[in-house]
Amino acid sequence: MFTPIKSTKVYEHVVQQIKQMIIDGTLKKGDKLPTERELSEQLQVSRASIREAIKSLEVIGLLEAKQGAGNYIKESFDQVLFEPMSMIFMLESRNPNEIVELREAMELEAAALAAKNIDKSELEEIRLLVDKIKNCEDEEITAAYDKSFHYAIAKASKNVLIMSVLNVISSLIDEVIIGSRKKILSVQANKERLNNQHELIYSALKNKNAVEAYEAMKGHFELIKNYYI
Amino acid sequence: MFTPIKSTKVYEHVVQQIKQMIIDGTLKKGDKLPTERELSEQLQVSRASIREAIKSLEVIGLLEAKQGAGNYIKESFDQVLFEPMSMIFMLESRNPNEIVELREAMELEAAALAAKNIDKSELEEIRLLVDKIKNCEDEEITAAYDKSFHYAIAKASKNVLIMSVLNVISSLIDEVIIGSRKKILSVQANKERLNNQHELIYSALKNKNAVEAYEAMKGHFELIKNYYI
Repeated sequence: MFTPIKSTKVYEHVVQQIKQMIIDGTLKKGDKLPTERELSEQLQVSRASIREAIKSLEVIGLLEAKQGAGNYIKESFDQVLFEPMSMIFMLESRNPNEIVELREAMELEAAALAAKNIDKSELEEIRLLVDKIKNCEDEEITAAYDKSFHYAIAKASKNVLIMSVLNVISSLIDEVIIGSRKKILSVQANKERLNNQHELIYSALKNKNAVEAYEAMKGHFELIKNYYI
Repeated sequence: MFTPIKSTKVYEHVVQQIKQMIIDGTLKKGDKLPTERELSEQLQVSRASIREAIKSLEVIGLLEAKQGAGNYIKESFDQVLFEPMSMIFMLESRNPNEIVELREAMELEAAALAAKNIDKSELEEIRLLVDKIKNCEDEEITAAYDKSFHYAIAKASKNVLIMSVLNVISSLIDEVIIGSRKKILSVQANKERLNNQHELIYSALKNKNAVEAYEAMKGHFELIKNYYI
């Protein structure tokens, strides 16, 4: 009996070649890819295969097709991890606790690293955010400041991988975050507790004390987790 | 002047629809997708667009084409995160320290969670691995046991997201891990230190003490980091 012959999947070889050029540094963020015609000639495959490869790389979030200008390696990869992470979450877990645990792991480390690596302007930004959270009357705007506060600490860690994972997790649970703030604030005394915790985190960062920053963030998460899910 | 009209990218709509079916639970791990013809009729798009969408989902690592049997949602997603994470690493960071920091964040949390969630057979497996690492004479095999030891703890955490991220990181730095073990063991006294640390981690898991497990893993990483890069 005949068995169908497995298609060679030429486009996958093209995808691999383009990835290899990223790995060895030939292609960098924002670089323009050769045209379809050039790629087709250089790699000696059909233009259809090149188009398939380019489409796949667009789906992954690695390439960006600019209207009439060609294909570019993306400048920002914020979204690259989002799809696969949310797919793993939807297919393997579906348990929001797992996201909270992952988020805590990331944020505690981020706080400790930020204490070591933060610079003056980042510290000033965090100072401003702590005050804004304290003084803002509108809960929706305060929640946005609160998110920025956590994001600023992740950024100050200077670890791009931690930032990327954290960004994905935050997007995955945006609604959970807003919901949990509401629950926390339904208890009157918690507003002051939250503000004090933000102050403690800020002080630790200012003192460039990693252990203190880690512990302050841990205390913060203990309050958050009580109301999370 | 005429501007080129942006193509509608029909296949992206198809990709979105399939993802939506995963999100709402219609499609689960291992499920078979309708045939190209059925999808083409149901979604009222060309079979070429369906094929493009399916190829994209294969590239993402979500679908698997089984020889002559059709397209299936994958059973395992170990590889789904690998590509985007390594791309972020290659394009945004290229600093191995960042991977080590991310790994430490994950493993400390994994140890604490494992202390809470570990079951009897997992504990026995870890006990066996600790002994094997201690008694094995062949460094290459020992290194493999050591990796299994860390993987078993991640598994016992019961957090699929942490396991997935950790898997990716480990693959990203497989060679670094092997290299660092060699460096650590070039100092005679370190073999006993490593073994003692493994014992401490095992005890903490056995006592189901999360704080102890966390601290024991932290001590382990302090030694590792001294020799890492």
